Amino acid sequence: MRIDNLQYANWSEKIFRQMNEGGVHAVHVTIAYHETFRETVHNIERWNRWFGQFPDLIFHGLWAEDVKRAAETGRTAIFFGFQNCSPMEDDIGLIEILHALGGRFMQLTYNNQSLLAAGFQEHHDSGVTRMGREVIREMNRVGLVIDMSHSGERSTIEAAELSERPIAITHANPARWWPVPRNKSDDAIRAVTGNGGMIGFSLYPPHLKDGSGCSLESFCRMVAETGERFGMDRIGIGSDLVQDQPDRVIAWMRTGRWTKDDGGNAAVPPFPSWFTSNLCFGAIEEGLAAVGMTVDEIAGVMGGNWYRFYEEGFTPRPS
Amino acid sequence: MRIDNLQYANWSEKIFRQMNEGGVHAVHVTIAYHETFRETVHNIERWNRWFGQFPDLIFHGLWAEDVKRAAETGRTAIFFGFQNCSPMEDDIGLIEILHALGGRFMQLTYNNQSLLAAGFQEHHDSGVTRMGREVIREMNRVGLVIDMSHSGERSTIEAAELSERPIAITHANPARWWPVPRNKSDDAIRAVTGNGGMIGFSLYPPHLKDGSGCSLESFCRMVAETGERFGMDRIGIGSDLVQDQPDRVIAWMRTGRWTKDDGGNAAVPPFPSWFTSNLCFGAIEEGLAAVGMTVDEIAGVMGGNWYRFYEEGFTPRPS
Repeated sequence: MRIDNLQYANWSEKIFRQMNEGGVHAVHVTIAYHETFRETVHNIERWNRWFGQFPDLIFHGLWAEDVKRAAETGRTAIFFGFQNCSPMEDDIGLIEILHALGGRFMQLTYNNQSLLAAGFQEHHDSGVTRMGREVIREMNRVGLVIDMSHSGERSTIEAAELSERPIAITHANPARWWPVPRNKSDDAIRAVTGNGGMIGFSLYPPHLKDGSGCSLESFCRMVAETGERFGMDRIGIGSDLVQDQPDRVIAWMRTGRWTKDDGGNAAVPPFPSWFTSNLCFGAIEEGLAAVGMTVDEIAGVMGGNWYRFYEEGFTPRPS
Repeated sequence: MRIDNLQYANWSEKIFRQMNEGGVHAVHVTIAYHETFRETVHNIERWNRWFGQFPDLIFHGLWAEDVKRAAETGRTAIFFGFQNCSPMEDDIGLIEILHALGGRFMQLTYNNQSLLAAGFQEHHDSGVTRMGREVIREMNRVGLVIDMSHSGERSTIEAAELSERPIAITHANPARWWPVPRNKSDDAIRAVTGNGGMIGFSLYPPHLKDGSGCSLESFCRMVAETGERFGMDRIGIGSDLVQDQPDRVIAWMRTGRWTKDDGGNAAVPPFPSWFTSNLCFGAIEEGLAAVGMTVDEIAGVMGGNWYRFYEEGFTPRPS
């Protein structure tokens, strides 16, 4: 079973076929960065059209067992997530609505301060705000997983401590391997994994040692070492694959509508030669074996661990 | 099993307790008259709060089996419906979204021309529009039931003919019994019931012979005769109970935001003395027995027929 717990591609039949051919049974796809609730619903409508157009390749994943169903029927279950809290606007009631529409992961912040917590690019990390505490409780209640990938250190640790259910860093790497601010300190990873949560390893070049030139071996050694340090059952893949996107998508991610800065000419960086599409997960499995991980450990990191996390994380709490 | 397939009360714990004490296992509640999509979502959020506050009395009904669950646990399943197509705005993709949020009935029109068809108060009945045909197909696909209670004659008949799944007149009475324009001609009732659909009998005074002074016996005779004419399995209750509402709610129903007319001083008319709350369904059952309906026929009209309709109507079509 293969699960990639974060992608943001310019979706197309080609990519859905690659998911299929690559044996990827579940993908957590980003459907909002800065979108309002209504805009997020529009993006869901777009996915509903794709589900109708390509029923032999993809379907809307709601629960862990949908990953099994995908594996059994040779398809890919698509799980929705938000990289920011903008889809809930300032309205805590929208959390249950978003979950009913299939939302399964929501970051409390993207790079900036949000109503709920601070992003990693803020000068000062507010920690989890008053509203943030309410929202964590509500996300716990309905089964919308808290994702702190882009959050600041203090916010990440506080969220892990406040949440009564496991939370996630869906896509980041340990800063001890590649010390950029977007990667996570041992303290942050320990807070999240110690509370039953997960970290998903990113293949997005700025998160990789030596960027686009990162070697498969270096990546796989980092995976194995992180598993040894924080638990082999606490690690997975969240590739952050950005495929076939125009360069301007980077400006949208970075600047949304919060600044009049146009985001400059930032381009989508080239992914490492050994990871450019959903066809490349087999290579990672071979790389993990080559650095000495066992068959069971590899099965965990490639999907089994996220599967267990989905089982625990997505259902509403019994009232 | 008792199902009331239309109410629009000023909801409160008192009313939920009456549903419970009155043994009403399912109520189709109106959650939008003129609301936009976002306003409808706000109304769903309000219901979600009530579900959280009164879990021993009510819960959100999604499927026919929820009515059984309600009966088994001594509660009332609340099914959402819209008396107009305003919640889908001009966006056919919202139909699937509204169904995912629990929407189960939608009128193609309230009293006026809509994007989809004509209301009964229009001078000219357009019939089902171009968009209306697309929307009927999509409602059929996702399992959102077409309700023509407030529609014009031609629109009602065309919708019944165009729909590939049974449709409903959730709340109206036969015009042959009480000939007001809001009640339905034999031709309209025949078109709907002949296609496997249902008519729910209304207790709203303007729809009753002699209005608020209508006798229980007259109502029950009408029920029995309508069953004989169109099928004992094609009839149910859609009381249109308007309870504890301020008079101004009538102006909202009538004028929404489509006119600058303030709706005048119309008041909620008093319901017949024998039907004023959810405690009164037993009296109707006795009245139906008194006019000669059998135990099975009464069980059908009081809930069994709607139950079967729910079973057929709410599930998405297999793709």
